[in-house]
Amino acid sequence: MSEERLKQHRDAIDSLDQQVLKLLNQRAEHARAIGEIKGGGIIYRPEREAQVLRRIKELNPGPLSGETVARLFREIMSACLSLEKPLTIAHLGPAGTFSESASFKHFGHAARLLPCASIDEVFRVCESSEADYAVVPVENSTEGAVGRSLDLLTQTPLQICGEVILRIHQHLLRSVPSLDHIEKVYSHAQSLAQCHEWLNKHLPDVERVSVASNAEAARLAAEDSRFAAIAGEAAAERFNLGFLARNIEDEPNNTTRFLVLGTHDATLSGHDKTSLVMSARNQPGAVHQLLAPLAERGVSMTKFESRPSRTGLWEYVFFVDVEGHHSQTQVQDAIEALRERAAFVKILGSYPVAVL
Amino acid sequence: MSEERLKQHRDAIDSLDQQVLKLLNQRAEHARAIGEIKGGGIIYRPEREAQVLRRIKELNPGPLSGETVARLFREIMSACLSLEKPLTIAHLGPAGTFSESASFKHFGHAARLLPCASIDEVFRVCESSEADYAVVPVENSTEGAVGRSLDLLTQTPLQICGEVILRIHQHLLRSVPSLDHIEKVYSHAQSLAQCHEWLNKHLPDVERVSVASNAEAARLAAEDSRFAAIAGEAAAERFNLGFLARNIEDEPNNTTRFLVLGTHDATLSGHDKTSLVMSARNQPGAVHQLLAPLAERGVSMTKFESRPSRTGLWEYVFFVDVEGHHSQTQVQDAIEALRERAAFVKILGSYPVAVL
Repeated sequence: MSEERLKQHRDAIDSLDQQVLKLLNQRAEHARAIGEIKGGGIIYRPEREAQVLRRIKELNPGPLSGETVARLFREIMSACLSLEKPLTIAHLGPAGTFSESASFKHFGHAARLLPCASIDEVFRVCESSEADYAVVPVENSTEGAVGRSLDLLTQTPLQICGEVILRIHQHLLRSVPSLDHIEKVYSHAQSLAQCHEWLNKHLPDVERVSVASNAEAARLAAEDSRFAAIAGEAAAERFNLGFLARNIEDEPNNTTRFLVLGTHDATLSGHDKTSLVMSARNQPGAVHQLLAPLAERGVSMTKFESRPSRTGLWEYVFFVDVEGHHSQTQVQDAIEALRERAAFVKILGSYPVAVL
Repeated sequence: MSEERLKQHRDAIDSLDQQVLKLLNQRAEHARAIGEIKGGGIIYRPEREAQVLRRIKELNPGPLSGETVARLFREIMSACLSLEKPLTIAHLGPAGTFSESASFKHFGHAARLLPCASIDEVFRVCESSEADYAVVPVENSTEGAVGRSLDLLTQTPLQICGEVILRIHQHLLRSVPSLDHIEKVYSHAQSLAQCHEWLNKHLPDVERVSVASNAEAARLAAEDSRFAAIAGEAAAERFNLGFLARNIEDEPNNTTRFLVLGTHDATLSGHDKTSLVMSARNQPGAVHQLLAPLAERGVSMTKFESRPSRTGLWEYVFFVDVEGHHSQTQVQDAIEALRERAAFVKILGSYPVAVL
């Protein structure tokens, strides 16, 4: 009886698979035809991929989650694209880092990854065309690499053509499977802060020690069973630590943001962001005055970050993200007005808002 | 004109995607219904997955390659399965090893990986049900882990329910991007042998030094730019070395074989293998006599390997793979006959032949 029902469902699945297979190959034929029309030009279109994924998530009836179908379609697009030419993606190595996960999340597993020893090398390898695209962390709560990415962005000829948002989970790791007799918990200061409530509740009397990185914390925990570390899955794998508790971050939406860089930015996708870097003249109220053109034209700012300038020409540079694409009139007008007021304005790129 | 043609292809893709999306969710509904019929029993059926993938490859009209559609359907099955319960897979860590690649290849990216510090730990973690399945290398030309897997197989209550074949490529790695002034090439002896012809042609006068593992070779090359290493992609990533030459193995079909272990083996898939371990009495011609029942019943042997016994009871144990499933009459009969002649016979499991 249940054997019969099993068989019915399996036959149905076989028939569905056959249809899916046919459709996927038809899709690949169209992707190939598009590649031929482009005739060796740029084949990766971030705005188009973002549109496809947004549509898929909107149309998705379930039971598969929006995130799952987006992942499957990312792989399908990756497979179709690699019929033309597999893309090479430079990222911060080694294997097992969040940067690797971000690269696969954005480009799918048909892409070829090129791990680099430093963020500087990621930029260099992509600038010299050894890699087609680069993935760098830009707002990173755990690896502390943001500053260098921002500094290099001011100088690079590369443009931002996408962003990737990766959910970051923190885990309590130790070499022995017990919460008892932990003498110290090591982690990066930001990670300790992110898990503050959990630590207060479960390990109120254990000393918390901040170290340079979560990987360093995991290394210390691997060396001595009296210590535990707070770190991500990759660090657990790398140092062969066990999970005492998973997902202990207080804020469930703890994320890291990565930028995708290439020799081009993206065209309008309908839900875009533009990243700019600029410097203000060193006068009182200069920053406030600098940003006025955005508000006046109804352009929303989604991020503002100041960094000490490395060039000595200005004291500070400002990284600003605004909603919209630089091809849209009000964004264009606002940038023109910024140019009149700022000592220096560089458009880092317009790109689709990350599809989660 | 070409804009118009582009749009036509993109519209066609959108329509195909919508159909695929609908079908994938219908597939997930059926998978869920199957899970309900099983009511908490074993949800992962290796024989069924193998059948689905074989069929997909047979039916595949292209242009997507058979390997690519198999990979996509592996991910689709993985996503449907994880609607029930995500599988936890123990494998030999750290991240970036061939064992990790083999686990993802077999179980898809919806599976949760549990990297372990040693092969012993991989077995232990799966035996204690911390992991649902384990993936261990068994014929490994580069990591030298085979022996330990075989020894543990003789004792474990786990059964073999699948195999994974991974293509292994060897690369020449160095910290500087030049073939000039290389003083030594380090690698595992087997890897040096695998790249013999390439080395004779391109680096005839460079000293070849064999070390314990390819990872060790990569570490040495990372420390001193006078040295190069032959190793896989994972080692290049881990030690941030550049590629001087890719795929330099003389034999293009260089592969490593992994076994998938669990609390059950697989039922008949129609193209199966059975692994056995046995011992022979210490008499002249004993091995020849031992294997006679296989030949007499027309059962083909695909592998024969002898290992010194660790128990002291017998001098040698023999690992034998035969074609067919232990539920098939001629295999069953052959095993019965083996039992009469051998001091000890253990069926390690019957499982579908790997779908490449």
